[in-house]
This record gives sequence, structure tokens and C-alpha cells, in this order.
Amino acid sequence: MSPETQQLLSALGDRLGAGGVLAGSDVDQRYRDDPDGRLGALAEAVLRPRDTDGVAAALAACNAFRQPVVIQGGRTGLAGGARVQPGEIVLSLERMTGLAAPDRQAATIVVEAGATLQAVQEAADGAGLMFGVDIGARGSATVGGNIATNAGGIRVLRYGMYRAQVLGLETVLADGSVLTSLKGLPKDNSGYDLGQLFIGAEGTLGVVTRAAIKLHPKPASEVNAFCALPSLDAAIALLARLRQKLGPLLSAYEVNFAPLYDIMVASMAMPAPLPPGSPVYVLAEIQGSEPERDGERFAEVLMQAVEDGVVDDVVVSQSPREFRALWDVREDANRVLFSMKGLIGVDISIPLARMATFLQEADAAIHAVDPGADIYVFGHLGDGNLHYQVLTVDPAAAYGIIYRGVAAAGGGVSAEHGIGLDKKQWLHLVRSDAEIATMRRLKAALDPNNILNPGRVFDLNPLA
Amino acid sequence: MSPETQQLLSALGDRLGAGGVLAGSDVDQRYRDDPDGRLGALAEAVLRPRDTDGVAAALAACNAFRQPVVIQGGRTGLAGGARVQPGEIVLSLERMTGLAAPDRQAATIVVEAGATLQAVQEAADGAGLMFGVDIGARGSATVGGNIATNAGGIRVLRYGMYRAQVLGLETVLADGSVLTSLKGLPKDNSGYDLGQLFIGAEGTLGVVTRAAIKLHPKPASEVNAFCALPSLDAAIALLARLRQKLGPLLSAYEVNFAPLYDIMVASMAMPAPLPPGSPVYVLAEIQGSEPERDGERFAEVLMQAVEDGVVDDVVVSQSPREFRALWDVREDANRVLFSMKGLIGVDISIPLARMATFLQEADAAIHAVDPGADIYVFGHLGDGNLHYQVLTVDPAAAYGIIYRGVAAAGGGVSAEHGIGLDKKQWLHLVRSDAEIATMRRLKAALDPNNILNPGRVFDLNPLA
Repeated sequence: MSPETQQLLSALGDRLGAGGVLAGSDVDQRYRDDPDGRLGALAEAVLRPRDTDGVAAALAACNAFRQPVVIQGGRTGLAGGARVQPGEIVLSLERMTGLAAPDRQAATIVVEAGATLQAVQEAADGAGLMFGVDIGARGSATVGGNIATNAGGIRVLRYGMYRAQVLGLETVLADGSVLTSLKGLPKDNSGYDLGQLFIGAEGTLGVVTRAAIKLHPKPASEVNAFCALPSLDAAIALLARLRQKLGPLLSAYEVNFAPLYDIMVASMAMPAPLPPGSPVYVLAEIQGSEPERDGERFAEVLMQAVEDGVVDDVVVSQSPREFRALWDVREDANRVLFSMKGLIGVDISIPLARMATFLQEADAAIHAVDPGADIYVFGHLGDGNLHYQVLTVDPAAAYGIIYRGVAAAGGGVSAEHGIGLDKKQWLHLVRSDAEIATMRRLKAALDPNNILNPGRVFDLNPLA
Repeated sequence: MSPETQQLLSALGDRLGAGGVLAGSDVDQRYRDDPDGRLGALAEAVLRPRDTDGVAAALAACNAFRQPVVIQGGRTGLAGGARVQPGEIVLSLERMTGLAAPDRQAATIVVEAGATLQAVQEAADGAGLMFGVDIGARGSATVGGNIATNAGGIRVLRYGMYRAQVLGLETVLADGSVLTSLKGLPKDNSGYDLGQLFIGAEGTLGVVTRAAIKLHPKPASEVNAFCALPSLDAAIALLARLRQKLGPLLSAYEVNFAPLYDIMVASMAMPAPLPPGSPVYVLAEIQGSEPERDGERFAEVLMQAVEDGVVDDVVVSQSPREFRALWDVREDANRVLFSMKGLIGVDISIPLARMATFLQEADAAIHAVDPGADIYVFGHLGDGNLHYQVLTVDPAAAYGIIYRGVAAAGGGVSAEHGIGLDKKQWLHLVRSDAEIATMRRLKAALDPNNILNPGRVFDLNPLA
């Protein structure tokens, strides 16, 4: 450890109090965790402020020392944004997990950045409300990380991305300035909405410390259905039909392409809801306010779709237990995929009108390089967001084929996971030089010493 | 006209072609229009590019000459943002009014910034879709101005502000850089979402030239109801009840406080839907997908509210004609208010929990200064947004009372109109020094010569 780092940590040790600074052998291996299994460096130190003032003090000191900082929430990110790079120290929000009592009338809650998504969901539920975002990592992913990556998940088509849930933020800039905007007003155009800058900026422009979050009335009914369909075109037609007939009741529309479901069924602990063998499976969900009627209405629309040949087979949940069981089938894809060694995966966004062509062309191109490649695709079809996995002897070729195909189709190289370190090389495929130059201007304006999550999303000085 | 200005206009005259540059006596009085009647300066020149390249050329030249530019769309803004200041030339988007065909499957449309809101509404309607924003100035307000002010209107509680409608923007920076992000993807985290910067920035950071806009399925049913209520508390209770019982069907919730309705009824051309004399009137609207059922369900919930003593009296629209007539009553407030000379008005946001106290205290304080003052309040109660008008001999005192009261109540000094020139002096009441300093950093980073809408929202160099 350099004398400068020692001096910095000593000053911050006093400021952040007991447990506020970990250094040397106190730095736990968990700060290296990465869900992709790509371990980061062991940081020389971890800063663990208890409040916003502590974050401000930590950043002001790091900025004065030009000390690079990597910001960590739940370390569940899938693009390497929180993976420690050599020379970085960790700023962890893990001691800032407070939640205020929800405001029932306004349907809002103010939470600290280190609170988990699940804690917010449970606080909302306890107040008779609902939080509109859900993702698989809910138990460990934090609100701060969710905001920094503008997290999505399974109900974006009804409630929007995380951006749509944020009514205000408190953020600390690299120089320790604190921007507090936590009024939680649904409508406010009193000057720039600065919070928007930090949503999806992956911690490169500031550190989110608190958020005013929008909640929704708790739905009185939740029903889902699992459908087998003859094609992607049929799945897209069913989506349009459900939107038309059910309006805003539709709350999730998830897809699973062959052969992923077949493989899941072969090793599933539970009975399969529908037999394998169809090209496409969809999980659709509604949330409504009329329990005595919503499920019946949903089933009617689906049965009509079967009669009209859009859907081959369907099962509609008849109880909360069945509702949960169908979601478990959807989440079972992760069990199967995580068990495959060497699998590569991407998180892409494709316009629905071009999705079938993209899938055919990518499949053909990947198999031209590696005839034995296996491709597993699932995702959030209602949002045009696919999670596309390949088991191949030539991962580099597959990445190139997929990302260039996405760019050609007018899509995005990261629908909901962000760019982080791992997708940086592909950003130029989907963003222009002028756009990336503008990102650099913003970064230089707000973090001129480049101390916050340096090198994530883009390099500030690409030629340096 | 200075030789530099002549040189600039001459260069741009060639570049922008016929009708691209107006100067001297060709500059029409309409470029001074202001809905508040506060005429701007007569500009020395008006630039009227036909396309994004023309906007880029115009700004690059103005930037090189350090020529201040005021950006004009429909000139319907209510905060003076487009009002010409001495020395400014006008950049008008009036020749960029194109609309692409809506994409029915994706429910999106790409439009040029000079298209009117009404043109977008009509294009959506023609494709069996609906645009989620509506405001009174729909026929002349433009998409670019709407985006620059993050316009709101009557259906924010269902569809959100303009920000929620924007899937992507094309924007020209002060130096002529063009940022094009018009893919219209519902989910994309491939680098910073730069478009967010320009929404609500009132033209100070860049000029929006095109937008990819989100549309919605056209509702199969629209029903509204006009209610008389005993108090604001009752109106807030009815809002909660409608949200609970009708879920996302609720699409507007407008309020009108005594004595405004009484005065409207006294001079109304149409028959009043309910007798005057109640303290509070509400117009509630639902949009649904079951015409045979939605109106009945809405009426049931309202009748129950009457039985429970929440509502004193209610009339529910039974036909499209009655539906339109109730909206006309709501919009009739403008007729009455615009006819009052010397009225001052503000557009404020207040948390519902503090609204009753704010109204009582403001009323008492204004009448303490001017016992003869008349106060007229209406607005978008579902969003906590009130339009508050005062007829008083001491407007300065009234402004101070209202804005300080808003700040003390945790509200915003501009809910949907923006800050522009006219509310700049109040911004510091609701935004911290650190926030305003950050706005300045962004402005300096993107428009270092301060040529774009200078002095709107805040002064870049307050001490200069």
C-alpha cells in the first residue's frame, strides 16, 4: 500500500468510524464476487459509510487523492461494473440499508441505496402496495445498483424500467457534492431533473445514496398462463391480441424458445405444465382489480386464441400455488443454463418486426462456424429483450455474430444489464462517435479526475 | 445589424436555402408572440431550417460567432422560454413538421420537432393507436417544445409526463454535433440514455429535432364523470377509492375549487352539469377495453361513493357527446380566467397530504395583504398539480406567499410549465445550491459559449 493510500485510509478511518474502513487482511473475498465467476482483484481497502455524509466524505477524500473507486451494491451485476480492477478501492453501500415507512397516500417510499430490491418489495407489500420491478436477483441486488443499471426484469411492459419507478434521487458527486431531490412529486419541472443523469450511468457520474420510489396499488388478482405456440410470429400475434383485449391488465410476457424448454423438462423436479416439443413457449401474466372476473376474462381470450390457431396449447393458473408454479418453470431456465460450463450469454434488445430474421441469421452464422453449437434463448418478449446463450467452441465468433446482427437489426447490445467492463468493446456498434463523445463530456464535467467506476461503459481517454 | 451578424446570416442564407433565413422587415411579428401577452423583442433574424442538417449548420455557425439563439416551436410556453431577448436570433422549427407513418406493431411513431401535438394525436388515431399526452394548446404546441418542457396535461396519472412517452431523440448540440437515437426500443441500456438530458431542459442543452414517441392501444371505452364534493379531503379520498377499485382504468382526475366553478356557471354557454355552490368539483375519466362494462363499473363505484358520503352529487357521461361536454366544462375554466385582466397565475406541485394546509395558509396570507383578493384554483389533482390564480392589488406579495408556501410544503414551483425566464427568481426556493451548480456544470459542458436559450432556467454566470 502506498503512503498516499495509507494517509487517505487513515483520514477516512476517523471519519467513517468503527467498521467504516477495511484494509489489508480485513478485506473479505466476497468483495471479489461476480455472478459470472470472473473474480475481480482483491481491493486494498473497502470503504463502508453509514450515511450520505459518510459517502460524501469518502468521495471528497478519494477525489483529492485521485484514488479510483469502484462502487458496490449487491454485486449481482452481469456486465462487470462492480468487479474490482487493480488499484481501485471499494465503496460499498452495504451499511446503508434503511427504508422509511411507505407513504400510503402518495404510494411512495424513500430507501437507502444499499437496501435490497426484495426489502423494497416487502415494505410495499406490508403497506398494501406493490413495487413494479422484479428480477431474479431480488434478494441480493440493491436499489442503488438497480438504479445505476436502470434494471428491468419481468414486468417492464406494464410498469416500465427502473427509471419509471424513480421519483427522485440523492446522489453524491465525485467531489463530494450532495444532490438531494427526494420530494417524490409525480409532476415537477422546477429545473433540470438531475436524477435522470445517474439512472443507467452505471456509477460513472455519481453515487446514488437514497431514492424516492414510486409504488402501485397492490393488484387484487394475479393470474398467469403457460402457452405452447407454433412460431415466434404466433407469439407476437398473441402479444398484440392480449394487449388489445386486456389493455393494461397484461403485466408480463416471457418467452422460451426450443430447445431450451425440452432440456428443462428433461431434468425438472416438478411436473411440466405442458409437454415439450413446441417451437415457442410463452408465460403471460395479468394483474387486475377484479378477482372474481379477471382470470375468467384472461382464459376466454386465451381459449379464443387456441380456437383461432394462434396458440397450440395453454394452461391457466387456477390458484396462487399454480401461479407460483408457472413462474418457477420460467425461472427454472436459470438452473439449467447455470449448470452448463462454458456457456456464453448476451442480453439483447431487438425490434419485434426484425426478431425472427435476426434469430434465423444468427443461428445460421453460428452453426456455419461451429456446427455443434447449442443455442438457448429465453427472455422478455413483451419488451423485445432476449437472453441468448451459446455453447460453442468459438465464443469470440459467436459474440461477433450476435452483436453485429443486433446492430444491423436496429437493436441494443444491452437491454437491461448495462455495459460495464464486459460489453464496452461492442458499444460503438450501436452508439455513434458523437454520442460516445457526449458521454465523455458529461463524465469529464462531473468526474474530471475519473475516479468513479473508471473504465466502465467507455474509456474517458481512449488514447491514453 | 452588426457586420458579424450580417456575415453569419449571409453564410447561413446560402446553406438553408429559400426561406431559410428571414431578416429585417421579413421578420414577422408572430415571432414575438407570447401567450402571457408579454411581447418579446423583435429579432434581427429568424433561422428556419428544413432538416436536422440545417439545424446543425445553423448552430455550428452561431456557435462560431457566439451568437445567442432562442429556440421556438409553437410559442405556447407559459414561462417565457421562447420569448426573444435583445440580441438573440430565433431558430424556428416551423418548417420541420414531418411525421413518419406510425409503426402499429411496435406502437411507436417518429416525428419532427415542429409537428404539433395534435398532428401526433391524429396520426396515432389514424393507426388505431393513441398518444398518451393531451394539453389545451394541442393545436399549436409542438413536439419539440413539449419535450423541452417535459409537458404534462390531463392524463399524466395514467400515461406519465412527456418523458414517459419519449423512446429516443435526435438532438443537435450547440457546436452542431448531432446525436441520433431513434431506434424506439422499449428496453435499451447500451450506454447513457442521452435523450433524458434534453427532456425538460427547456432548450438550454440542445435542440431536439426528431423524437421516437411511444403510443398506446386506443381505448375501446372512454367515460367521464363530474362530481360535487364537500371538501378537498373528500376529493383525495375519492381518488384513492377510484385507484383501488378501478386500477389502471383511471386516466384523468381534475379538480376545480370554489368559487371558480360558480363563476363559470354564471356565464356558461352550455347548461351546467351540476349546480354551483359546492366547495370542490372533480372531473374523473376512465379509459378501458370493455365498452359494454366499463361505464357501468365506473358508475357503480361512484354511486357507492355517494352512498358513503364521499361525493355529494355526480353525473356520469352516457354518450360520446356527453363525454365531450364534460371535458368542455373543465376547459371552460380557461375562458373565464383569460377574460380577467391582471390575473396572476402559477403552476405548482404540492404533496396531497399537505395540500389542504397549503391552500388555507396561502388564502389567509394573501387576504391579509389584500382583503379584496380573489383566488381561483383548478388543476390536475391526481398529480398534485394546481393552477392557482389570484386577482390582487399586490401581485408581488401574492407570488412570494405562494412560492414560499409551496417550498415549505415540499412542492415544486413549476409542475408542468417549466422555469423559463419568468420563474427563474424562484428556483432557489426549491433547488439547492449544489443542484443549481450541477445544472451550470452541465450547461457549461454542452454549451460552453452559452448560445442556446441563454438565461432560461438559470443564469450560467450569475455574477457576470
